[in-house]
Amino acid sequence: MITIIEYINVSGSFVFAISGALIAIKKRLDPFGVLIVAFITAVGGGTLRDILLAKEVFWLYNTSMLYAVLAGAILAMVLKNRLDFFSKPMFFYDALGLGLFTITGVQIGLQNQLDNSICILLGTVTGVFGGVLRDVMVNRIPVIFKKEIYATASILGGFLYLLLLKLNIPNPYSQIIPVIFTILIRLAAVYFKVSLPTIYKKKHDQ
Amino acid sequence: MITIIEYINVSGSFVFAISGALIAIKKRLDPFGVLIVAFITAVGGGTLRDILLAKEVFWLYNTSMLYAVLAGAILAMVLKNRLDFFSKPMFFYDALGLGLFTITGVQIGLQNQLDNSICILLGTVTGVFGGVLRDVMVNRIPVIFKKEIYATASILGGFLYLLLLKLNIPNPYSQIIPVIFTILIRLAAVYFKVSLPTIYKKKHDQ
Amino acid sequence: MITIIEYINVSGSFVFAISGALIAIKKRLDPFGVLIVAFITAVGGGTLRDILLAKEVFWLYNTSMLYAVLAGAILAMVLKNRLDFFSKPMFFYDALGLGLFTITGVQIGLQNQLDNSICILLGTVTGVFGGVLRDVMVNRIPVIFKKEIYATASILGGFLYLLLLKLNIPNPYSQIIPVIFTILIRLAAVYFKVSLPTIYKKKHDQ
Repeated sequence: MITIIEYINVSGSFVFAISGALIAIKKRLDPFGVLIVAFITAVGGGTLRDILLAKEVFWLYNTSMLYAVLAGAILAMVLKNRLDFFSKPMFFYDALGLGLFTITGVQIGLQNQLDNSICILLGTVTGVFGGVLRDVMVNRIPVIFKKEIYATASILGGFLYLLLLKLNIPNPYSQIIPVIFTILIRLAAVYFKVSLPTIYKKKHDQ
Repeated sequence: MITIIEYINVSGSFVFAISGALIAIKKRLDPFGVLIVAFITAVGGGTLRDILLAKEVFWLYNTSMLYAVLAGAILAMVLKNRLDFFSKPMFFYDALGLGLFTITGVQIGLQNQLDNSICILLGTVTGVFGGVLRDVMVNRIPVIFKKEIYATASILGGFLYLLLLKLNIPNPYSQIIPVIFTILIRLAAVYFKVSLPTIYKKKHDQ
Repeated sequence: MITIIEYINVSGSFVFAISGALIAIKKRLDPFGVLIVAFITAVGGGTLRDILLAKEVFWLYNTSMLYAVLAGAILAMVLKNRLDFFSKPMFFYDALGLGLFTITGVQIGLQNQLDNSICILLGTVTGVFGGVLRDVMVNRIPVIFKKEIYATASILGGFLYLLLLKLNIPNPYSQIIPVIFTILIRLAAVYFKVSLPTIYKKKHDQ
């Protein structure tokens, strides 16, 4: 199981690093800036989760994370003009990373005997906060605050995971089902252009 | 006493959540964005204080905080067109929250046997950093860096609290007096439009 | 040795506090805002390093850091119109601070038996993240993401320090040489206007 979580973390970090690097490239940062934004995107969520729990952050003793980020950032810099070609698989992997990171966050909450609502919160922090920190770093309002069902997919995935555990669904189904569920919500949200119900009136309300 | 600190934290979080949600609504974030900005505003100061002390953050084992934030954020979304009506009581409660959070921050510094100056710093971090993080999240320069006696009220309140403890003023007076003092400074600052002395010359200096 | 690290931290903090205060003054923050930005610039890097390691932050038990920051911020406010005069020594001291902070970060990584790559990362975090947090606070994209060999100088300095330790170069040479090396890279980068190789084409690519 250790090795599966490990694999998840490394491959999720790789995908998130690419997405972070692409946004840094759009902002025309220099190679070091691209690298650091990729790093923050990839490990930011899990790092904040560990900090909130007053634990040493997960990548201190695991250099494979560093190499995954480095590989993702370099790949993004090399292929930057061709990444449109990869945008569909990228979207899928990003949703996969979101689902996987959410599950690991919830698991760590459970290991610390935290309340269910806090476990879901930690799952969401792990899944989405890398992207939030990335946006703060490149000086824009975090996109997940403004559009699409993203954090919501993470919250629902975390909720389903806890539910399946309650129902004694065995491993690995209890983990695989919420990850697939999270991916499906993301796919559906983008395909059907669903957002959260707006709390604002039409444009003349602005 | 536990229950009073608990009550303070919950009611302070509720008020700060409303203020955070209102700013997020002005920036037209979606409901999830409003909720997360409300959460950061409400618990950000105490969270940073706990992180600096390498302690698990205070809301990990206390879900009442989550519900207070949720209630504040929903209230703000529902009443968003009528909140002008509440602006005066809100201002008062915000000042109350500032005073109360400052005292809890100083107390936690004292419990850790820290120097007086560090205790006051932790009190100020607890009182004002939720608002700073809120502003960073919605991509504006923190307002407390630019106007009004806000952090200064927190610093003076923390200082008075330490002074009263030194003078062996008993509980709860040693706590109530600096909270009232903080509120009065805030009221006076806004009523008389007092700011910190400017270090800039007139406009043609710009 | 304790006293040397202490001296380094205090004098480095003083210099970084001045640089932070000057940027806050340019943004016309009020005196409290100037002070807090100075503080974040001076101690932000070491603070983040300690947080990542789940340790109490270094300035909690060391008020001399507070006074150094206070002195730097006040000096910047008083001399703000004459600081051009000091810009060359300031540049030198900033490079010195960068080199010194980098070494202390690497040392703390080694004390925690971390991998060499993580030690260099912690050195770089210690050296450069105060400036990153300063820029995020005043709402601009961190300058070190965009120009000059700055973080790169820190990475190379940390790398050289580890190399000298491997070669059993005795103290204090193993520490002094990488600090001088870091300063020389900074001087050379600015003198010869060297940046990292751009990954972007000419302007019409924009």
